[in-house]
Amino acid sequence: MTAPRIGIYPGSFDPITLGHLDIIGRASRLVDQLIVAVAVNQDKGPMFSLAERVALVEQALAGQSFASPVKVLGFDQLLVNFARTHQANAIVRGLRAVSDFEYEFQMAAMNARLDSQVETLFLMAADRYHFISSRFVKEIAKLGGDIDGFVPPCVAIALHDRCPPRANKG
Amino acid sequence: MTAPRIGIYPGSFDPITLGHLDIIGRASRLVDQLIVAVAVNQDKGPMFSLAERVALVEQALAGQSFASPVKVLGFDQLLVNFARTHQANAIVRGLRAVSDFEYEFQMAAMNARLDSQVETLFLMAADRYHFISSRFVKEIAKLGGDIDGFVPPCVAIALHDRCPPRANKG
Amino acid sequence: MTAPRIGIYPGSFDPITLGHLDIIGRASRLVDQLIVAVAVNQDKGPMFSLAERVALVEQALAGQSFASPVKVLGFDQLLVNFARTHQANAIVRGLRAVSDFEYEFQMAAMNARLDSQVETLFLMAADRYHFISSRFVKEIAKLGGDIDGFVPPCVAIALHDRCPPRANKG
Amino acid sequence: MTAPRIGIYPGSFDPITLGHLDIIGRASRLVDQLIVAVAVNQDKGPMFSLAERVALVEQALAGQSFASPVKVLGFDQLLVNFARTHQANAIVRGLRAVSDFEYEFQMAAMNARLDSQVETLFLMAADRYHFISSRFVKEIAKLGGDIDGFVPPCVAIALHDRCPPRANKG
Amino acid sequence: MTAPRIGIYPGSFDPITLGHLDIIGRASRLVDQLIVAVAVNQDKGPMFSLAERVALVEQALAGQSFASPVKVLGFDQLLVNFARTHQANAIVRGLRAVSDFEYEFQMAAMNARLDSQVETLFLMAADRYHFISSRFVKEIAKLGGDIDGFVPPCVAIALHDRCPPRANKG
Amino acid sequence: MTAPRIGIYPGSFDPITLGHLDIIGRASRLVDQLIVAVAVNQDKGPMFSLAERVALVEQALAGQSFASPVKVLGFDQLLVNFARTHQANAIVRGLRAVSDFEYEFQMAAMNARLDSQVETLFLMAADRYHFISSRFVKEIAKLGGDIDGFVPPCVAIALHDRCPPRANKG
Repeated sequence: MTAPRIGIYPGSFDPITLGHLDIIGRASRLVDQLIVAVAVNQDKGPMFSLAERVALVEQALAGQSFASPVKVLGFDQLLVNFARTHQANAIVRGLRAVSDFEYEFQMAAMNARLDSQVETLFLMAADRYHFISSRFVKEIAKLGGDIDGFVPPCVAIALHDRCPPRANKG
Repeated sequence: MTAPRIGIYPGSFDPITLGHLDIIGRASRLVDQLIVAVAVNQDKGPMFSLAERVALVEQALAGQSFASPVKVLGFDQLLVNFARTHQANAIVRGLRAVSDFEYEFQMAAMNARLDSQVETLFLMAADRYHFISSRFVKEIAKLGGDIDGFVPPCVAIALHDRCPPRANKG
Repeated sequence: MTAPRIGIYPGSFDPITLGHLDIIGRASRLVDQLIVAVAVNQDKGPMFSLAERVALVEQALAGQSFASPVKVLGFDQLLVNFARTHQANAIVRGLRAVSDFEYEFQMAAMNARLDSQVETLFLMAADRYHFISSRFVKEIAKLGGDIDGFVPPCVAIALHDRCPPRANKG
Repeated sequence: MTAPRIGIYPGSFDPITLGHLDIIGRASRLVDQLIVAVAVNQDKGPMFSLAERVALVEQALAGQSFASPVKVLGFDQLLVNFARTHQANAIVRGLRAVSDFEYEFQMAAMNARLDSQVETLFLMAADRYHFISSRFVKEIAKLGGDIDGFVPPCVAIALHDRCPPRANKG
Repeated sequence: MTAPRIGIYPGSFDPITLGHLDIIGRASRLVDQLIVAVAVNQDKGPMFSLAERVALVEQALAGQSFASPVKVLGFDQLLVNFARTHQANAIVRGLRAVSDFEYEFQMAAMNARLDSQVETLFLMAADRYHFISSRFVKEIAKLGGDIDGFVPPCVAIALHDRCPPRANKG
Repeated sequence: MTAPRIGIYPGSFDPITLGHLDIIGRASRLVDQLIVAVAVNQDKGPMFSLAERVALVEQALAGQSFASPVKVLGFDQLLVNFARTHQANAIVRGLRAVSDFEYEFQMAAMNARLDSQVETLFLMAADRYHFISSRFVKEIAKLGGDIDGFVPPCVAIALHDRCPPRANKG
């Protein structure tokens, strides 16, 4: 096989966590190029705008070295169409022991039906990232908790800016 | 036993998929009459109104033959009360490998508590329907993807009408 | 539909528990005739022989009234063939919140492939039977525990006979 | 160990069910003091206000005897901070066969990271409470169903007040 | 990245099914070379010997074209050591909706601990293979059922040879 | 409450892992005395005899300090009877994201039925122990892999003695 292997790692990244970074590092060893694809997800009411989320992923990746080139793009279309546009042949998903398997499996199966040329690769995060999720990180940040162990420094700063300190009520 | 067996297949059907149709076909072989009961579900903000969803189910069923009579009704009350009103003794639910079991089991157990005369029958969809859900079908349609393989033709048309073509952004 | 509906409830029944009895009662309301089909399962090294297990099921059913006739048969062949021989159109399985879903779903899917005319019906046991299994009943009986709340009286006697009292060691 | 063991049982309690009461009784035997901590959860749009939910828990507990003192508090901060403020060393969670394990495990793991001195204890509700949830109780009450078997009397009254009788439509 | 990507697809393959073949085809598109690694698994008492299983995999692959070279090897050592010996950087596992996730996740996590250079890739089989397992195929074959839809022709022949026809008893 | 709280942590411990040790440390903070109860489990064909397993647990605990006294006992009887004999009011079980929930929940429910005075406490192991199991440790040791990161040093030595080095075959 001579065509380069291009992988897409899609998600909301609202915001990117250390678990996401772990998957990016792993995926970069398996493809010739990796595209981190940040979904608009307007419906979900993200905490950070698409532009902010893309910028945070880029900052989180800056200064790190990966086994293959990694670029970051926003997208607002059907994932398999986005993949086709970028000649990607693999969609990368991180699998955690507490994943929403129902969602993951349906998405992978639906995508396989929509484009049988694009394969979904599930990678498993390292142990210490299995219980980290963007949702919990945001909940903790909103309540003034310390999220430094869960996200890259640039995200910790952005979360602190977004979630001003509060007087605890008990 | 001489009383006819009447089954109810409740759901949002927003919209009906080929997976639902598969379950209707299977259920019709097990009861003397099947009522497809379309729930109002105002809270969930359905894509199609109750009248539209009932009409789509009826169109999807039209021209097909079933082992026993199938009729379609909307409902906006407690399911077990609806069942009692219609002398139904069985609630039919489709079970997929990626079902939300928590929800399914709680609903079945709660219904059994509310009316011990109504049994919940879980039927398994055929392999090729295990990963189809109304939610994913709508997400794909909204993004302009091809949902013809997942829904009956009348639903495909309705979804195309509801989700106008869009310029892809990447 | 004029042909009678015949259901088969297959299992090892090594031994029959109150959970099994609950499913038999429920299933008898949904079919015109129910066959409790006791599998040989020689490989699993059952505690009771096939003849003993059939006899225990029959004793457990004796004196109870069901909504439709229930008979008990041993079998040692492919389940769908057994179903066909007996003109059954439904295989009944009890589903508990702690079921081995992997096994149940594969069996149902395989059976559907082998004979698309036989449907698998999953019924949910009542709350108080969700955690009872033949395996645990046997483990408790072997260790001299009281299993009267989990099995019919005839099975309790048979288990006490099979598992003689023992001096506790700690 | 001479310091008293203080446990916190956090939740929305919107409203408290018999399943919650069962866990409170069990937990009270394992700690020297139990704090039922009612979360504000403004985002979730609770049916009852924080003050109402606290009052309902207090009424539900009134007149019952527990193995150790039980008090009820509202809280609107990070759970581990609330625990620290009250010198609690254990967070109690009820585990049902249909629990949202993903959520439970992530919360327990995140809390362990935020404060390694606070342990999460999972207790299992009795069989008959495994399928009761506040969500279903509210859905049934809204549709005019009978929820007396699922909640304490004071909650049944409050739900009937909140959900006026309705004409059934079918 | 210039070094070739070598993937290992380990398993018992007792015997190889159409589901395994599907995964081999998918994996061959993601690596430069794929090694199907047949485990000895003496403890499990396989139906076919290691040599027979290797031969059946080779026959099943013969005449098919894959996106990259596929070779078949038996192995009887620690998987990560086998991977290292063959300069493989990826272990491929098929994931089905009814997978034994406990086993899969523990194996992947343990392997990651033993050799952080070897990544586990989980691929999802096509819908129609989600419920096929070697175990069920063997059970059906032993009982004289038709397994032609589940395995390649060479395996069907081998199973028929191994499981002589039997007189049905019912 | 003035009676001391006594907890029992039962298991096969064939052999004890770092995950077990983590649970013992956590549990010792929640009770006044902890009994590690090593089950005979003759049927499972353990790798180490009961006496060896008890000795390994004792060696693993030696030199460590716990929040309350910990003692190790073998047992060969019904767990709730063993608990009663030792005035224990809590059974401690470690819960991992990959636990065999079916088994855990049935055991807890059955024990609650057999003795309603004994509560089962589920504790969650730290992230890095979620994927460690005695089974996998033994499989790796048998194949000559390095298990030092998964078990205490005394167990690593015992496993190396029990599983002599082998020539790799590939």
